[in-house]
Amino acid sequence: MEVFGDNSCPPSCNTLGFLQKNNSLEEKGRLAGHKNLLSCDNSDRDARFRLTETDFSNLFARDLLPAKNGEEPTIQFLLEMVDILTTYVKKTFDRSTKVLDFHHPHQLLEGMEGFNLELSDQPESLEQILVDCRDTLKYGVRTGHPRFFNQLSSGLDIIGLAGEWLTSTANTNMFTYEIAPVFVLMEQLTLKKMREMIGWPNGEGDGIFSPGGAISNMYSVMIARYKYYPEVKTKGMSAAPRLVLFTSEHSHYSIKKAGAALGFGSENVILLSTDERGRVIPADLEAKIIDAKQKGYVPLFVNATAGSTVYGAFDPINEIADICEKYNLWLHVDGAWGGGLLMSRKHRHKLNGVERANSVTWNPHKMMGVPLQCSAILVREKGILAGCNSMCAGYLFQPDKQYDVNYDTGDKAIQCGRHVDIFKFWLMWKAKVSKASGNGPGVIIIYIFIQMLCTLKPQHTNVCFWYIPPSLRDMPDGEERREKLHRVAPKIKAMMMESGTTMVGYQPQGKNVNFFRMVVSNLAATQSDIDFLIDEIERLGRDL
Amino acid sequence: MEVFGDNSCPPSCNTLGFLQKNNSLEEKGRLAGHKNLLSCDNSDRDARFRLTETDFSNLFARDLLPAKNGEEPTIQFLLEMVDILTTYVKKTFDRSTKVLDFHHPHQLLEGMEGFNLELSDQPESLEQILVDCRDTLKYGVRTGHPRFFNQLSSGLDIIGLAGEWLTSTANTNMFTYEIAPVFVLMEQLTLKKMREMIGWPNGEGDGIFSPGGAISNMYSVMIARYKYYPEVKTKGMSAAPRLVLFTSEHSHYSIKKAGAALGFGSENVILLSTDERGRVIPADLEAKIIDAKQKGYVPLFVNATAGSTVYGAFDPINEIADICEKYNLWLHVDGAWGGGLLMSRKHRHKLNGVERANSVTWNPHKMMGVPLQCSAILVREKGILAGCNSMCAGYLFQPDKQYDVNYDTGDKAIQCGRHVDIFKFWLMWKAKVSKASGNGPGVIIIYIFIQMLCTLKPQHTNVCFWYIPPSLRDMPDGEERREKLHRVAPKIKAMMMESGTTMVGYQPQGKNVNFFRMVVSNLAATQSDIDFLIDEIERLGRDL
Repeated sequence: MEVFGDNSCPPSCNTLGFLQKNNSLEEKGRLAGHKNLLSCDNSDRDARFRLTETDFSNLFARDLLPAKNGEEPTIQFLLEMVDILTTYVKKTFDRSTKVLDFHHPHQLLEGMEGFNLELSDQPESLEQILVDCRDTLKYGVRTGHPRFFNQLSSGLDIIGLAGEWLTSTANTNMFTYEIAPVFVLMEQLTLKKMREMIGWPNGEGDGIFSPGGAISNMYSVMIARYKYYPEVKTKGMSAAPRLVLFTSEHSHYSIKKAGAALGFGSENVILLSTDERGRVIPADLEAKIIDAKQKGYVPLFVNATAGSTVYGAFDPINEIADICEKYNLWLHVDGAWGGGLLMSRKHRHKLNGVERANSVTWNPHKMMGVPLQCSAILVREKGILAGCNSMCAGYLFQPDKQYDVNYDTGDKAIQCGRHVDIFKFWLMWKAKVSKASGNGPGVIIIYIFIQMLCTLKPQHTNVCFWYIPPSLRDMPDGEERREKLHRVAPKIKAMMMESGTTMVGYQPQGKNVNFFRMVVSNLAATQSDIDFLIDEIERLGRDL
Repeated sequence: MEVFGDNSCPPSCNTLGFLQKNNSLEEKGRLAGHKNLLSCDNSDRDARFRLTETDFSNLFARDLLPAKNGEEPTIQFLLEMVDILTTYVKKTFDRSTKVLDFHHPHQLLEGMEGFNLELSDQPESLEQILVDCRDTLKYGVRTGHPRFFNQLSSGLDIIGLAGEWLTSTANTNMFTYEIAPVFVLMEQLTLKKMREMIGWPNGEGDGIFSPGGAISNMYSVMIARYKYYPEVKTKGMSAAPRLVLFTSEHSHYSIKKAGAALGFGSENVILLSTDERGRVIPADLEAKIIDAKQKGYVPLFVNATAGSTVYGAFDPINEIADICEKYNLWLHVDGAWGGGLLMSRKHRHKLNGVERANSVTWNPHKMMGVPLQCSAILVREKGILAGCNSMCAGYLFQPDKQYDVNYDTGDKAIQCGRHVDIFKFWLMWKAKVSKASGNGPGVIIIYIFIQMLCTLKPQHTNVCFWYIPPSLRDMPDGEERREKLHRVAPKIKAMMMESGTTMVGYQPQGKNVNFFRMVVSNLAATQSDIDFLIDEIERLGRDL
């Protein structure tokens, strides 16, 4: 096993050190506070509702509310669904279950033991609908399983889950205060808190929740363009000079996507070189700005990444901000992955200088464990989002409403209808944020595992490594070894998915052939789970 | 009461005619199929789980899973939440409850009887969290209430709701087959069915679910540009001539937003004149194309609206398609609102010619009653979405996976992470679509109310009207009357919200001063509910 991405990391600085600390602190947290838990007795006295044995085989969707006499079948159907879901929740946290039961697309499409994905033209009974739901979960992937390390978003937060169930039930839309009064206010208060965490004075500024980090990053480019060339909104890109954007070669691909979509062109997104830990080299930024200007381009925007996707690197924001000020450029910080560290007094220094940014992307659905989707774009200048995006549709944003229409936030968005992404996050904040003893305000319980990383050189919870099978251990470095090593991770990953025991991602990056990227963002993961992953990689890969 | 938007509508053609028919058919549907419903007995024999009286006042989020011994409090907490939610569902369909309990922003921000929206820095007990959830619902708006007519999206479909609860619990991401195998396949199969409904041969083509109609429309403009000027992706808008887009003056504002965002400029979105029913006049399109070309612009894209937001108008697609073919333009059909009619053999003729479109927006979360968010962009040409948007990120879309990576659909999107919007829709389709007797395939039960609209001249379920208070009835038409009438709808709407009894939207449009737009898209609404709305408007407005 070779750990890379931090050449200065001493041999003792391995994942085990992290894990022991992780485990001990985690257990301490978990063992607290059960004193007053009532045992689940099965006496009837306290039961307020129950799932009765209902025959759903002759019931159909048309028998549910709003049908006459639909209330009882509706409640029983929903409770039956809850039985399926709570069983799934229990299994998700049960290490004796698999992470997934892998099948190829053609197998699922052919139908698995009666699970037929095809859409029919005869309504199914509610019994069959419930069976479909069980099967959907059976053949899916347990992203909350303690041994799922595959993605930056993982875990299954119970408060967040309950919040999302409520959101679905409320089934409303964020565009106006009129139909989402409570959620709109929750969004405003939460965005203000997030801006305070960033360090903008009094939490002033602007922001909105968007359907993910890529869209949040797209917003940042749009508002930068609007700030410097507002006439582009009405006249198009021909009203601006040839603009260029700058971002790390390790940054998320959404910056390039935004460049392509918004009419800059992906080639006008200039990639910056990084140091051995994946951080932007500020001198390279300045050199490329000067070079672009000499070629007749106009630099507009710099993205600094706080927590890169693969290495978990933090670009040096202050040094980048100095250059942005010198050349009068918009500074965006993509903290989709690392933004959550702003909640930690101990780790927020990794984002030092973030308060100098003009805009920040921060995805609570990643490091903070909020269920998908939950991403915010935060902006220092008030009113610029509305300036950039408003079209003043008369049927939604009537100026003659009886309430203060400044609370109608929909016209700031590039969306019209907008899903309620705030409630689960607001609820988790209410349930979890604490002035933890010794840490001061702003330490959120769900970060507990991050605190164990501080002695490690990797800047974040990304751990990137190769597994070197015995057959390659004595082979001299060179093209042949590289080619063989490149094939190791995909082979192990394939076997891992077939066995369904754990999941971890892999990819090449630059000159590095395929390597594993383990990400810890799931509070359920303990040392034993990471040991399990390592053992599993060894077991599956030793004969390659 | 003056109904407008259809000058040819005879006096007898009022809402009552529609409502009587609506009611009778609806009741027929509701009364069917209760034969085998078991009564809800309270015997213990069949109870599989129950909500016990748990003391949540000393329990905190940290006591839930993954905490040791966290399973029982987790299940009890979720069941307590389900108790809150099922109570809310019952009340939503109960006409004796209000639609909303209105408060101004400052009132909610000051705190309502212990409901404090502010984020604290001390974790709340689970008891307080549950209270917060009850209060959140109490001060919200019941968008599923039979008397909520305010938005194109309304209703609370129980199958869709259950589907959304499952989606939240699965908490995964659509970007790869790897972590969403079942949902990715469901999306593919459903998109294919939708393309078949559009009429594209064998349902071939492309598509993706997006976070709403505005983003779906934005996709259509992006791919049109990519089709004709693929180099814009890499070189930016400077690689294209001065492009213009065409859309109805009554079309949704998202077309203009897309024009602004993507670098065309909102002034280069040319608005087309409409007839008295709000439909694009094809001759005006052709004249404006010729005019634009003479001025040196290059026409690129035409949007035809199928179900306009305010009037519910359907543009004449075939005539527009003829012009698009003649001038080699991309034809998009925005069926966000009206696309659902493609499921009805009786009403799909309103979209005649849709199969000639290059792309179609269709929001199941509007007319089809699917919970928010659920919107599809459908494209006739296969592969063009990926061509337009792909950036081939190595960490997600590895080409050396063990399964057919054509099923990794994420790189088609402008998003990276993408919420699972398909499952609730797939489940509703399974539960509801039927070959209804006499109607042939493709009639979906939830459309039943649409069938009652056929004798009315309004093309869709939008009913636009003024309420004329007695004080204005004898006043001669003129500026003074117009000014007074303009203030009537906002005043009535304000009183309506204060009383909380019902909700309906209003807006001005063109030369028409503020008028009400009632929308029927909620299966729960019956004749009595619409009568109630009318009576309520009369009650609130008679003294104005």
